Formats: sequence, C-alpha cells, structure tokens
Amino acid sequence: MADAGTSLAKMRATAPLVHLITNFVAMNIAANVTLAAGASPAMVHAREEVVEFAGLAQALSVNIGTLDAAWAEAMEMAAQAMAANSRPWVLDPVGVGATQFRRNVCSRLIALRPTVIRGNASEILALAGLGGAGRGADSADPVTAAEASARDLAARCGAVVAVSGPVDYVTDGVHSFRVANGDALMPRVTALGCSLNGVIAAFLVGQPALSATVAALAYFGQAGERAAQGANGPGSFQVAFLDALYTLSPQDVTSGARVSRT
Amino acid sequence: MADAGTSLAKMRATAPLVHLITNFVAMNIAANVTLAAGASPAMVHAREEVVEFAGLAQALSVNIGTLDAAWAEAMEMAAQAMAANSRPWVLDPVGVGATQFRRNVCSRLIALRPTVIRGNASEILALAGLGGAGRGADSADPVTAAEASARDLAARCGAVVAVSGPVDYVTDGVHSFRVANGDALMPRVTALGCSLNGVIAAFLVGQPALSATVAALAYFGQAGERAAQGANGPGSFQVAFLDALYTLSPQDVTSGARVSRT
Amino acid sequence: MADAGTSLAKMRATAPLVHLITNFVAMNIAANVTLAAGASPAMVHAREEVVEFAGLAQALSVNIGTLDAAWAEAMEMAAQAMAANSRPWVLDPVGVGATQFRRNVCSRLIALRPTVIRGNASEILALAGLGGAGRGADSADPVTAAEASARDLAARCGAVVAVSGPVDYVTDGVHSFRVANGDALMPRVTALGCSLNGVIAAFLVGQPALSATVAALAYFGQAGERAAQGANGPGSFQVAFLDALYTLSPQDVTSGARVSRT
Repeated sequence: MADAGTSLAKMRATAPLVHLITNFVAMNIAANVTLAAGASPAMVHAREEVVEFAGLAQALSVNIGTLDAAWAEAMEMAAQAMAANSRPWVLDPVGVGATQFRRNVCSRLIALRPTVIRGNASEILALAGLGGAGRGADSADPVTAAEASARDLAARCGAVVAVSGPVDYVTDGVHSFRVANGDALMPRVTALGCSLNGVIAAFLVGQPALSATVAALAYFGQAGERAAQGANGPGSFQVAFLDALYTLSPQDVTSGARVSRT
Repeated sequence: MADAGTSLAKMRATAPLVHLITNFVAMNIAANVTLAAGASPAMVHAREEVVEFAGLAQALSVNIGTLDAAWAEAMEMAAQAMAANSRPWVLDPVGVGATQFRRNVCSRLIALRPTVIRGNASEILALAGLGGAGRGADSADPVTAAEASARDLAARCGAVVAVSGPVDYVTDGVHSFRVANGDALMPRVTALGCSLNGVIAAFLVGQPALSATVAALAYFGQAGERAAQGANGPGSFQVAFLDALYTLSPQDVTSGARVSRT
Repeated sequence: MADAGTSLAKMRATAPLVHLITNFVAMNIAANVTLAAGASPAMVHAREEVVEFAGLAQALSVNIGTLDAAWAEAMEMAAQAMAANSRPWVLDPVGVGATQFRRNVCSRLIALRPTVIRGNASEILALAGLGGAGRGADSADPVTAAEASARDLAARCGAVVAVSGPVDYVTDGVHSFRVANGDALMPRVTALGCSLNGVIAAFLVGQPALSATVAALAYFGQAGERAAQGANGPGSFQVAFLDALYTLSPQDVTSGARVSRT
C-alpha cells in the first residue's frame, strides 16, 4: 500500500477537477478545503447541465445534507454519469437515520455503486440497516460499534466504507485500516466532514480506492493536528486548518501518518 | 430572573438539537455559531422531510433572508410542527419591510405563534405595521424608535420580541429589558444577527423565554466584546468571535452581562 | 480618469444597496466582502419579489456559478429591472464554457446589456464565441489571450469587459487598462472573483463604468497584497483580506494602484 504522502503528491500533480454536489452549509468550506488541498472544485447541480458537467469532471462527491427532491435527482444523474464512465464518486449519507426521505434517497444512490461511502458511526449503522442513534450531523455511536456494519456494507456495495471519528475505520470488506490522525476540535467546526469528501474524491483519481481513502484521511487528520497547535477555539482552528492543508508536504504527511492495519 | 451565565450553563448541559431553516448567506456561519456556543445545529428544509425532522428537534429557528415559495412553505410546516408539540421556535423577519412577499410570509408565520421574534428596529417596525425604513438586512431606524412597537407586537402575538442594535431591547409586552453588550464591528460581519437566532433557540429549550432571550443576547454581545479586543477588521473579528463563543465561561458571562430592567 | 482612491471614497460615501444574485459557494464571502468594502449587500432571488427588490437597489451583481432554471429566470428579471431603470449591473459568467445551459443563459443575460462583464480569460473567450479552455471556475488561458476578444465583446455589448488574472485587463472596446495589483494566493480562496463583482457593482453607482471598474480592481488587488504580507496560507489570507478591504484608505489605494493605459 502506497504511503500517504506519495498519494498526496500524486493528487496534487493531477490537480483533478472534482464535481461537488453538497449541502448549503458545506458549499464554501468544502470548496476552500478542496482547493487548499490542491484540487479544483466545482459545484454544479441543475438538472439542465449536471450530466454534461459530470462528463468533464474526474471525480464526484455527493452529500445529502440539505437535500430536496430536485437535488436528489441531480445527485442520481451525476452519479449515474460517473458510474457509466467508470469514474470514482463518494457518497456522504448525512443524517440518513433521521428521516425516511433520506433513507430512500440513499438507497437509490447506493444502487449506483459509490466508490467510497464515508459517514460517522451513526450514519454507517443506519445505512447498513441497523438503525444508528444519530439525530442530525453528529454521531451518537462510537466508531467501533459500526465496524462490523462497515465491513458488511462494503462487501454488499462493492465500496470502500470509511467511518469517521476520533480514530477512523476504513474497510473494503476484506482489508481494514484504522487512521488515528485528527483533533478534538474538528467536530466543533461545521461541515468539515462534508469537506473531507471532496479531498477523498480528489485522491481517488488514478489511485486505488482503499489506499487513496486511507491516505486522504491521514492527510486531513494531520492538518487538524497542525491547526490545533495554535488555535484558541473553532474560529482560529478553521483558519489554521485551511493553511495546514495548503502547506503540509508529502514528506510531512508520510512521517505523521498514524495508520494501522486491523 | 436567572443570571445569564446560569442560562448558558443549562443550554450547554442540554446541548439541544436545533433545527435551522435559514438563508444561504447565513447557513455556514449560523451552524458554526450554534456549534461553538455548545448546541447541535441541523439544516433541513425539504417538504418531504421537514415535519419529520422537526419532530426530532428541540427548538427551531426560521429566517426569511433568501426566501422563495418552497422555502416559505417548509418554514410554515416546521413552525406548525413545533407549535403543535409546544416546542420553542424563533422568527427572524429579515428585510420584511422590503417586499410584499416578505410581509405575506411573515403574516402567516406569526399566526403560528413564534416563541421569540428577533429583528432590527426597521424590521420590528415593519412587522408591527408601522413601515420601518430598512432596505435590506440593515436597519435605518434606532432601537428606541421601535420599543413601543415591540411591546405591542409582543402583546398581540404572545411572543418575546427582541430588537437588536447597539443596545438591544427585549420585551414580552409586560416586562422589558435592555442589553448593552456588543461591539460596533458586529454589524460589519454578514449574517451575525441570523446566527444569533440559533443561539436564542438553543437557550429556549427548557428555560423561560424572556430570561433565556436576555441571557442569549448578553452572551452573544460579550463574545463580540471579547472578539473586538484583538481584531483588525471584520475578518479577524469573525474568527475571534467564534473562539469567544466557545471559550466564554458561565462565570464570565454572568459577570460581564450589562442587563437592565426598563 | 479619477484616481482609484477617490472612486473608493465616493463609493463609501454612497454606501449603496447592492443586490446580489450569486452562487451558493460565494453567498457568504461575497456579502462579507461587499460589506467590508463599505457597501450594503442584499441577496434576493425569489421570482415573487426579485423585481420589487431590484427596484430598491442601486446596483445589481449576477453570478451564474450554481445556476438552475429558476435562478436563471430570476437573474433575467432583475437584470431587466435594472436596465429599465438605467441602473448598473455586473455579469459574472462563471464556467460559461462548460455547458450548453450556461451558454444559453449568458446569451439571454448579455441581451439585457450588463454594464460590466467580468470573468477569467477562459470565460471571456467562451463568451466571445471563441471556446476558451476553462473547465470549472479556474482559467486555463492567460489574460493576454483574451484581450482582443474582450475588446470585441465590449464593443458588441456596449459593456465594460474585465478579464481577471495576475494582471487584469479592462476595456470598453476603445480604451483599455491593465491593473497589476493582486497576489498569487487570491485564486487559492474560493469565490473571491465572484465577491469582486459586488464591489464593482458598488463602485458603479454614480461613477463612470470604465474608471469605476479599474478603481475597484486596483482596490481589490491591493487588499490582496496587504493580506498576503502576514498570511500562512489561504485560510489566514482570507481573514486578512477582509480586514484589508475594511482598513485600506482612499490615500492607500491611490498611492498603491498599479494601473496603466494600454
């Protein structure tokens, strides 16, 4: 498996165009995160153009945070286009346990074979049909409680599944990793998880899904660690986090990665 | 009346799930403000799920900033659900004086009995039927010009009415308070007023509306005072403001509150 | 031609109400930028009120970044209202080369005679019918490659056309200027170009279009230069940029402007 820094260097050399269909809360920070990492984000959702645009993009990230019926349809259209062209796409099932509407939309999206599904433990449990306890975007379950469900979901969907938390868990159903990078201030900034998906999507371009996802999580978590050093709270943390995404070198990321095979 | 710090401590102990239906400008900062204060924000607006989600939330904040017909309908559906469950909800009538469409939507929302109505002086005057002079989100009238209208509106609607400005005015139609916390840089950051409503909504959970609103304003204003100390302009102010919301202790807030009964 | 600082002082003295119909990524930063510069931004897009609101505004900025059919209709309605009242409006043709839908919408908008069209080189080439190479919001062409097209477009549309890049190019089809202010970190922050349009719109109120646009670009670029001095990456840059927009004086802007007639 490639080390995390090499994977980051490949992503930056590609600077892929990443199509994001995300929620209104995450729009700006997700674009800034993806841009600071070294990729080129673009937000396009209108049914009149979403398929044509997906044809230009090298990867797609879909996030159901502030869903409605028209956006759900656009998400399906874009995901279908990526699947048809064998291009990678990432699904973030925000708050999927909260309403029947979200469960229905996620069922349809999963049928379009996402390359990676990333959520918190409650979301992955809900997606696996086990009814996680999460209410909104926050998890009410520990990562370890979702590991078996993550493996089942991965095997069933042919996807890499990543469970975010203090220690992330990443699995393709056969091989699994834990990524211990990150900082406790990260969940105190809204939409950072949503923003991570744009970074994962960028890493997936031309790289194997499992190692690319692990590398993206290790890189993202290390940016959090570096940002926390001088932060006085979630405001200054967010500023320093964008700076760290931009300034972390591949060498930094390889040496700071806390990845273990389970 | 409970002191402001005690009210903050209760809110943080509850960490309520606050449902926000707000405008596109405020989405990210309102979520970050609510999160930094210690509550759990979630943005949901689709008619397919808004009532189901409102059933999970402990409080609701509605802001008409970037309104359209579909969003207005979702706001009414969510407010109705909160009213039916006797849960608190806050109305922010952004720019209500500007167009007939906004006046119509606010009339329908007020009939659903908001717990708190918060706006600037021009908005409260417009809502009370007196035609304030505000154009967009900025007030063209002083707070004192809206005090009588605020009392009338409160008595008529059974709501607490808060008028934001250099010195805020809060009334339930019978008892009234002034809150003198705050800083002149606050109106130079967009959507801070919108974000305040998420904080008020969080304070309302399990607390009396009048004292909870006063406490939320005193807390919010003090975060502004602390943020202004090292700020070089609205950019650094906003960063420090989020940090201050996160780091202010109940003791800080009680000792710094500048609240007076009128 | 008025110097840039004088133009800034006039804008601040007017503090115009600027109507912005922009994309979801830019909403917050565009409002903060316009506010920090000294104008009063307001975002309104519903077909139920967009014409009534446009009647109150002194200038309009339209940005097609996250377009859909309903928003496109609102943009046309607002632009028509401004044109009918001889008030200035600015068009930002984000990613116009990417899809047929964008090209169609821009054709209809250009027929409504924008006062200023501002884009990157790829967008201006695409708009001029020459098929620029841009994919999303980023330009794949140098500014100089778009200068002849910019002059043609300006002459054909009766608009001032501004091409953003390391050195900006501004033309009314007859007279042309280069503005060399700016910093390499600016394109690493998302939606700064979109935000610039709110500032241009504010400068246009009561000022000649060509000199107002040049002045707005010189001011905006200098805020970038000042922000870069202490920045550690795009996060701290963005914070310092808002501070600089707020604190730069007319004298600063006049003495730092790097404007040349071509």
